[in-house]
Amino acid sequence: MTKPLIQLALDETDLNTALVTAKQVADSVDVIEVGTILAFAEGMGAVRMLRARYPKHILVCDMKTTDAGGILAEMAFNAGADWITVSAAAHIATIESCKKIADYYQKEIQIEIYGNWTFDDAQAWVDLGINQAIYHRARDAEIAGKGWTEDDLVTMKKLSKMGLSLSITGGIVPENIYLFKDINAKAFIAGRAFTGEKGKFTVEKMRLEIDKYWS
Amino acid sequence: MTKPLIQLALDETDLNTALVTAKQVADSVDVIEVGTILAFAEGMGAVRMLRARYPKHILVCDMKTTDAGGILAEMAFNAGADWITVSAAAHIATIESCKKIADYYQKEIQIEIYGNWTFDDAQAWVDLGINQAIYHRARDAEIAGKGWTEDDLVTMKKLSKMGLSLSITGGIVPENIYLFKDINAKAFIAGRAFTGEKGKFTVEKMRLEIDKYWS
Repeated sequence: MTKPLIQLALDETDLNTALVTAKQVADSVDVIEVGTILAFAEGMGAVRMLRARYPKHILVCDMKTTDAGGILAEMAFNAGADWITVSAAAHIATIESCKKIADYYQKEIQIEIYGNWTFDDAQAWVDLGINQAIYHRARDAEIAGKGWTEDDLVTMKKLSKMGLSLSITGGIVPENIYLFKDINAKAFIAGRAFTGEKGKFTVEKMRLEIDKYWS
Repeated sequence: MTKPLIQLALDETDLNTALVTAKQVADSVDVIEVGTILAFAEGMGAVRMLRARYPKHILVCDMKTTDAGGILAEMAFNAGADWITVSAAAHIATIESCKKIADYYQKEIQIEIYGNWTFDDAQAWVDLGINQAIYHRARDAEIAGKGWTEDDLVTMKKLSKMGLSLSITGGIVPENIYLFKDINAKAFIAGRAFTGEKGKFTVEKMRLEIDKYWS
């Protein structure tokens, strides 16, 4: 399996603060994400600014698209995003619209798994040619004390086998990385853990852990 | 039942165009919505601008919140929104976070129904004290030719009985209004139908239809 990437999620409520965070760890991460919070706070200007500052990084816009897929996808790809997220709860026609726009721009979409999805849904995504999904504990589920469980891992393995590479998120720390060694992990995503004084150290520790379990 | 409101959804990809649309019909509508497209295009600046221009309208920010509910809700309410939308696919802890922030600001949240939701989910929303939901045909489902069906109406009636008043959307035209006469309809939402040369005429025609079926 390809070595997982490290993704910095920028979920600040203003662009200036996000740019400070980005600057601190950009050299050490592979993927920069304009999180839903930042995207709603500042609009596509945030995507354009990060694209201009970091032309070589993979840039994700976390829109969790649920409707009007084609328009949202086009907006984000035009602003410079490489990947956008699409909600698992979206109608399959919405997901298909996003995929078509992504193909046109030679970009990718990632299905963000939330809610009462089924493996039949997952098969429908794969049938559309989608090969990425995001698996996480919701921020609020995290707060509610819901941790990584054996169920999570079984589900992730099953999704991997169906052909989806997973970006994994939700309070991930370097000590968690080994849990995912049998999973087709596209990226490990963190925001707050990569922010502030210890941010860069945490990214580097995560890289070491990835190197340990993926060759 | 209270007389349903008329809601203008602004789904333009830039604020200036949205402001032109708003100006054309604002006098005739009750609710103005910063649609997901506009919110992602321009950020909370769009909410602030519309709040400043239309201090007396109910202002909705259609975030379809799926995660990080508290932060997104706070951002939108601070910018001047009265209601925000929260995805039915969100974890119940996310929905609860949004509700708490809404209560704090004396604002409201609306559950946006998408994906594989269940009536048990709906009961959980009602149990949190939520009394609004949005029911629609997805834009892309619409494109896929999925119209209003008897199933839709049965589901809406059941949700009404559970205590949810529904904002109804998805290609609604004045000629559709009678379909919803037995439903607890909070608002009828349209965007493109209220835009352009015939926009104002369509709003007024919709008002006449509402007056015909709700007294």
